[in-house]
Amino acid sequence: MKGIKIVTIGGGSSYTPELVEGLIKRYDELPVRELWMVDIPEGKEKLNIVGNLAKRMVKKAGVPIEIHLTLDRREALRGADFVTTQLRVGLLDARALDERIPLKYGVIGQETNGPGGLFKALRTIPVILDICKDMEELCPDAWLINFSNPAGMVTEAILRYSNIKKAVGLCNVPIGMRMGVAKLLDVSPDRVHIDFAGLNHMVFGLDVYLDGEKVTDRVIDLITSGEKSNVTMSKIVDLGWEPDFIKGLGVLPCPYHRYYFQTQKMLEEELAAAKEKGTRAEVVKKLEAELFELYKDPNLAVKPPQLEKRGGAYYSDAACNLINSIYNDKRDIQPVNVRNNGAIVGIPDDSAVEVNCVITKEGPVPISVGELPVAVNGLVQQIKSFERVACKAAVTGDYRTALVAMTINPLLPSDTIAKQILDEMLEAHKPYLPQFFQEAQFS
Amino acid sequence: MKGIKIVTIGGGSSYTPELVEGLIKRYDELPVRELWMVDIPEGKEKLNIVGNLAKRMVKKAGVPIEIHLTLDRREALRGADFVTTQLRVGLLDARALDERIPLKYGVIGQETNGPGGLFKALRTIPVILDICKDMEELCPDAWLINFSNPAGMVTEAILRYSNIKKAVGLCNVPIGMRMGVAKLLDVSPDRVHIDFAGLNHMVFGLDVYLDGEKVTDRVIDLITSGEKSNVTMSKIVDLGWEPDFIKGLGVLPCPYHRYYFQTQKMLEEELAAAKEKGTRAEVVKKLEAELFELYKDPNLAVKPPQLEKRGGAYYSDAACNLINSIYNDKRDIQPVNVRNNGAIVGIPDDSAVEVNCVITKEGPVPISVGELPVAVNGLVQQIKSFERVACKAAVTGDYRTALVAMTINPLLPSDTIAKQILDEMLEAHKPYLPQFFQEAQFS
Amino acid sequence: MKGIKIVTIGGGSSYTPELVEGLIKRYDELPVRELWMVDIPEGKEKLNIVGNLAKRMVKKAGVPIEIHLTLDRREALRGADFVTTQLRVGLLDARALDERIPLKYGVIGQETNGPGGLFKALRTIPVILDICKDMEELCPDAWLINFSNPAGMVTEAILRYSNIKKAVGLCNVPIGMRMGVAKLLDVSPDRVHIDFAGLNHMVFGLDVYLDGEKVTDRVIDLITSGEKSNVTMSKIVDLGWEPDFIKGLGVLPCPYHRYYFQTQKMLEEELAAAKEKGTRAEVVKKLEAELFELYKDPNLAVKPPQLEKRGGAYYSDAACNLINSIYNDKRDIQPVNVRNNGAIVGIPDDSAVEVNCVITKEGPVPISVGELPVAVNGLVQQIKSFERVACKAAVTGDYRTALVAMTINPLLPSDTIAKQILDEMLEAHKPYLPQFFQEAQFS
Amino acid sequence: MKGIKIVTIGGGSSYTPELVEGLIKRYDELPVRELWMVDIPEGKEKLNIVGNLAKRMVKKAGVPIEIHLTLDRREALRGADFVTTQLRVGLLDARALDERIPLKYGVIGQETNGPGGLFKALRTIPVILDICKDMEELCPDAWLINFSNPAGMVTEAILRYSNIKKAVGLCNVPIGMRMGVAKLLDVSPDRVHIDFAGLNHMVFGLDVYLDGEKVTDRVIDLITSGEKSNVTMSKIVDLGWEPDFIKGLGVLPCPYHRYYFQTQKMLEEELAAAKEKGTRAEVVKKLEAELFELYKDPNLAVKPPQLEKRGGAYYSDAACNLINSIYNDKRDIQPVNVRNNGAIVGIPDDSAVEVNCVITKEGPVPISVGELPVAVNGLVQQIKSFERVACKAAVTGDYRTALVAMTINPLLPSDTIAKQILDEMLEAHKPYLPQFFQEAQFS
Repeated sequence: MKGIKIVTIGGGSSYTPELVEGLIKRYDELPVRELWMVDIPEGKEKLNIVGNLAKRMVKKAGVPIEIHLTLDRREALRGADFVTTQLRVGLLDARALDERIPLKYGVIGQETNGPGGLFKALRTIPVILDICKDMEELCPDAWLINFSNPAGMVTEAILRYSNIKKAVGLCNVPIGMRMGVAKLLDVSPDRVHIDFAGLNHMVFGLDVYLDGEKVTDRVIDLITSGEKSNVTMSKIVDLGWEPDFIKGLGVLPCPYHRYYFQTQKMLEEELAAAKEKGTRAEVVKKLEAELFELYKDPNLAVKPPQLEKRGGAYYSDAACNLINSIYNDKRDIQPVNVRNNGAIVGIPDDSAVEVNCVITKEGPVPISVGELPVAVNGLVQQIKSFERVACKAAVTGDYRTALVAMTINPLLPSDTIAKQILDEMLEAHKPYLPQFFQEAQFS
Repeated sequence: MKGIKIVTIGGGSSYTPELVEGLIKRYDELPVRELWMVDIPEGKEKLNIVGNLAKRMVKKAGVPIEIHLTLDRREALRGADFVTTQLRVGLLDARALDERIPLKYGVIGQETNGPGGLFKALRTIPVILDICKDMEELCPDAWLINFSNPAGMVTEAILRYSNIKKAVGLCNVPIGMRMGVAKLLDVSPDRVHIDFAGLNHMVFGLDVYLDGEKVTDRVIDLITSGEKSNVTMSKIVDLGWEPDFIKGLGVLPCPYHRYYFQTQKMLEEELAAAKEKGTRAEVVKKLEAELFELYKDPNLAVKPPQLEKRGGAYYSDAACNLINSIYNDKRDIQPVNVRNNGAIVGIPDDSAVEVNCVITKEGPVPISVGELPVAVNGLVQQIKSFERVACKAAVTGDYRTALVAMTINPLLPSDTIAKQILDEMLEAHKPYLPQFFQEAQFS
Repeated sequence: MKGIKIVTIGGGSSYTPELVEGLIKRYDELPVRELWMVDIPEGKEKLNIVGNLAKRMVKKAGVPIEIHLTLDRREALRGADFVTTQLRVGLLDARALDERIPLKYGVIGQETNGPGGLFKALRTIPVILDICKDMEELCPDAWLINFSNPAGMVTEAILRYSNIKKAVGLCNVPIGMRMGVAKLLDVSPDRVHIDFAGLNHMVFGLDVYLDGEKVTDRVIDLITSGEKSNVTMSKIVDLGWEPDFIKGLGVLPCPYHRYYFQTQKMLEEELAAAKEKGTRAEVVKKLEAELFELYKDPNLAVKPPQLEKRGGAYYSDAACNLINSIYNDKRDIQPVNVRNNGAIVGIPDDSAVEVNCVITKEGPVPISVGELPVAVNGLVQQIKSFERVACKAAVTGDYRTALVAMTINPLLPSDTIAKQILDEMLEAHKPYLPQFFQEAQFS
Repeated sequence: MKGIKIVTIGGGSSYTPELVEGLIKRYDELPVRELWMVDIPEGKEKLNIVGNLAKRMVKKAGVPIEIHLTLDRREALRGADFVTTQLRVGLLDARALDERIPLKYGVIGQETNGPGGLFKALRTIPVILDICKDMEELCPDAWLINFSNPAGMVTEAILRYSNIKKAVGLCNVPIGMRMGVAKLLDVSPDRVHIDFAGLNHMVFGLDVYLDGEKVTDRVIDLITSGEKSNVTMSKIVDLGWEPDFIKGLGVLPCPYHRYYFQTQKMLEEELAAAKEKGTRAEVVKKLEAELFELYKDPNLAVKPPQLEKRGGAYYSDAACNLINSIYNDKRDIQPVNVRNNGAIVGIPDDSAVEVNCVITKEGPVPISVGELPVAVNGLVQQIKSFERVACKAAVTGDYRTALVAMTINPLLPSDTIAKQILDEMLEAHKPYLPQFFQEAQFS
């Protein structure tokens, strides 16, 4: 029987060793025959470094996974079973602009659902839709597992503007929350279950269970009892929560909710951090350089522990888990980004949501959520409106649509500032936004 | 045949002469026999001034409407056909606090959908629900026409927490927009029709028609062509709109949308105005004092033209129009606040919305809107979430619920500032918020 | 100013004199300049007879409406403002088969929502969609007013399978019910209002009003107090209703509901009638022959009173009313078939429903219904399922889809009988069903 | 640690040995300490027979489950963890009337969703709601697992008319379909998965999977390739399906669908069977008598194999499976009857549906279905309307509501016959329908 062919677009990413480790670990039930790592010419050096590490890893593990390194995406895609996308159009320099420019105007950049995320979407979505077209032709039965950010909008765009139905968006926020809660409760993560529902980077834990019993209130007490919530991510500063607010809300927020419920404090933190140590992109750039130095070591044949600090921890492991459950029809439950299909009442059926799903061979099937709690529904709807308008702007290259997306983002303080930020960012990212410049669509 | 009995609660309001004028004007088809003006002891003096003016007005007009002045609400309600509520719990002094306190924390007070509006709701809703209980007993067949602000939340609370089904919320924003558009187009208002949909003070003109033909784009061009939009209200400064934003949005915003789409500029304006000439409440207080001086003139027997500057223009006329259409089963179209009942897809059936309705003897029936445009849906949903949580806080007196309402309001910059404003406002409005203090529900 | 151009496809219909009368009557506010009557070669003789009567009518009335008779549909459509369709593919002979064949198997033919209606849809929808294509090209701004049966399915098909958005389906059932109720109450019809909601030939009067006051229970008492309901149509036998059933239902059924709530009795009636005097088609054929004899009379220059017995009374008048309200942006309320757009909760937004609408220059806008009463929702949903599958069969020519439509129709007693009737009817109507025969899609 | 207390109401049922066997089999992970078997005085003898068999079974198995037999329901309920209800108000004699009376009028009795089912609901729902009230008081944390028929309507009634939230309805139709499909495919049942969605006894297999791969078309080919479908139940005659109909439908029907898609043939079968060997109730009565003879054998200490022929095979095993998954938070997937909560679009959130659920310690959570296929939605909606009206009739005892339920049932041919059957059945079941007779609600 033929083994599995996996293609990783953006294969030169520093995350890739976690993916390789995940595949090695699961080899017995997930017999991968070929792993194709694809990158663009600008990423060739990194691809080689990571690729060689990957080769050493499979060799050391003694599993017969062939590692292929290539710049030819179409060659890689032919006959693939799973395609993972972890690309970053414009690399970390573009992300630095996403963060820096809004800050000049007193606005948080926020590389996923904020103005930075809007531009990440404008740059990324056309590339992903292009990959979808290639997949239609070259591997129409393959699954697309996207973990390029902004994962929510990318999934929304695939659902609305491509013909690829077998697509899932993946994020490490839910697994990070589960890990965090487990640590708070001082139990192993597999005893913790969370009813996730919302959007990507806008997901709530509607209820938390320990060994199947509801412990939501206990967890809320724990995250509001000190100066820090202790459920966060390395990249998002943990300012704690106003206890009565979270207790009134009655659900577990995700780390990214700080940008919306603590906007002013987060802005101050970001301004200070940008001054002191650079924006997150700038910090990550240093981290990555260090990682690649490690990866070059010809004696290294395992994922180095330093990778976990990178911020993307669990990402690739989550991807392996998902691929494994699809391949083996495991029917276990994982939180992913998929077509809503009625799971959350009030969100269009054909929009992307992040919810717990049963993972089957035919893909993830969402578990019904019903109505979101009233107090969180409004914000979720507002981000969904932003996401939908942003996707439309990414596909049409229409200036006014982009301005509407920018202005309705809850982080923006006015239409005029939105326009200023938009104009400066469009200019700054011009090389990656051909859809906005080809026909002089704006003045 | 018995004539109609109308009861006006808050009858001592400076708006009442417009109501009386409206009833006189329509006497032939709307034969009102008794108009009962009710007020509280603190308002007795004003009630007498306005009441006497009303008596002179009906006498001069030669219509047999009996004017009754009373402080006994229950006596007035017995056997009423229509009850209008135009009350202001805590009077203008409370409104001044609604506006002043948030400004201290760099937040717009906004007496309808902002933090000020939250407190207006907390003070007003229990009183209105009390009136509903009296109506159930004393005039179960009467119509309740509310134009106390925040009219949206008051209607939401009546729908969810009272047994009164025959209730309508009324606002002068839609009629003001129609007047404004007519002026811009230089035509008479009856030739202009607007498809209104949204929430109170959060209503959009989805399309605008002149003699039945769509002129939406033309109107959008007009409101974005200069420094001012020219569709506003006397109380809301007209900063103009970013043309590409409104053109991208493709719908007519209402004046209150400035608070959400131009938050920072509006805050600066309010801070400056507060310093210079006082908050809106303080300005209105002076205006009212002047009006009551006029009303005292025993030779005055008509509505004085100065009333139109008061800010509530068209309000009472809209109320007379509504009463007239209900009484005569006119089946004409008016924008009012009613149970959604499916009119706007995505808003709960049992929530209040502001939409065009066919006005029948059995009440207003909303015209289907379908889905709101994606770009505006998010903000509308967020305000609806705020409104619903605020109503719950008003009814339960629960501190955490009030904090959630405050924090999720889009004007608030963080959970911590929300708590500070909430705490100071609760203390300031203590005499009017028994539900929060009776059982020491918060620390 | 240019006058209005109306095109009537199926202009040789015996109904046309009512249309002409309606246009003459409204000439002052609806200045029609040209009325084009179009028919197919087989209908040429009738077209001439009716056309000449029409010419005599306008001449006598002294209005400058030009009557054009043509077999060239495309020439007629060019530049039209309103297109009415009142065609009958296969003429009355086809209808006779629609009624006769099912009866052989002990099943009611029912030429609208029954097996007969399915075949009428299969024959008619492709022709209407063809007209839509011509309209897109030749008169893209024109309104399509369809009153060809089955009007519900034809509207459904236009909404789902054509690009024409300005389309309305019209039926005389609601106006007939209003007339019937007015007669029962012994008042003039304009004092009666009915909240219509449902589907074509499956519409309910949810509430009935006299001068704006609910009289639903009184009307239900009247229609259930004797052996006949007295709210019916000339073509549907009036068997009365089981009083407790209708009182329990609490809404006014339409005459066609007898086919579903009194299936067995109606079948017996139809079998007896078919034996005695022929099916409805056969009766109508005689009536039509008599009418055309009358129409030939060169001295006749008005609509002859005998036309009212034809069964289609009020149809053309309803069409003129609708055209008039669209043209003059009357914003009055008329029951028509349109896109649901949320009006009836539980029916897809993009499906056709028959509901009260506000008639504007931009077309009919449905008034919100909310949820249908539980007891009627099921049957309405079942007919909607039937309609949607039938439309799909009409467009695809797929045999199995047609069999599903036939089998799920509530009049059919089993899948096997459905197949027998389907097969015999497909064969009988072969000349009018090219979509089923071109590529030998079934055995 | 305290073990589990299970209470079985209707414990004297012939099904109970399967339940006992199921509990013994799962003892290691589901440590039941007490099994209380409750019955009414009329069932005392059977209770003793079955109870003694149960005692012999646990003794032989060597598990420390205490068996308690009692006629005191309240004593049994106190402190229960799980309550199963498998009762039959009026016993098999009542069921015989449910089947016999409609047949006299040429109508299928159908003891679940037909006129027989209506009467079963009218008799059973008040008793179940009474048990719910006892549970609120005596074991508020217990789970109610109902498998009394009509399980769909009973669940609907619990959801709408009781305060018990922890309730699940169970049926053996889905597991029977899975077994049948496995046999057809000649594989073990655990390799087959079916996407179940619909209502109780009106459930469809939307897709069928073998080892996770879709085999829906293959299964449809198999069930339509011969004279029998081979997916049926012992009590429902297998007439095969019209192949093109099922292929057009594209989903797997359940055995009960024959009553709706093959009404006439099923009626003929039932009439013949009733004449020849008695109705199903009469056949079952004999089977039961034989079973109880077996049960009396003091040497019998296992579930006798003859029980499987009884028609309720897998029922009790399904119940044990469900209890086990709840107790152990298994998060596996089982098809049960629960609150829809958005799982099937178009069915009210608060209505009961039969869908695949993830079974957690907090109960079953439905997996999203989205919209049902158009062709089946109508029938499902119609049965849901019937169920809801029937529940209302059961609770109110209102004659007209009962008549509406009867008339809108798709098996009934007219309002008049509905009334005749209703009247005769009300009279026949009078002792079990106090709600209809206490206050002379009908004439």
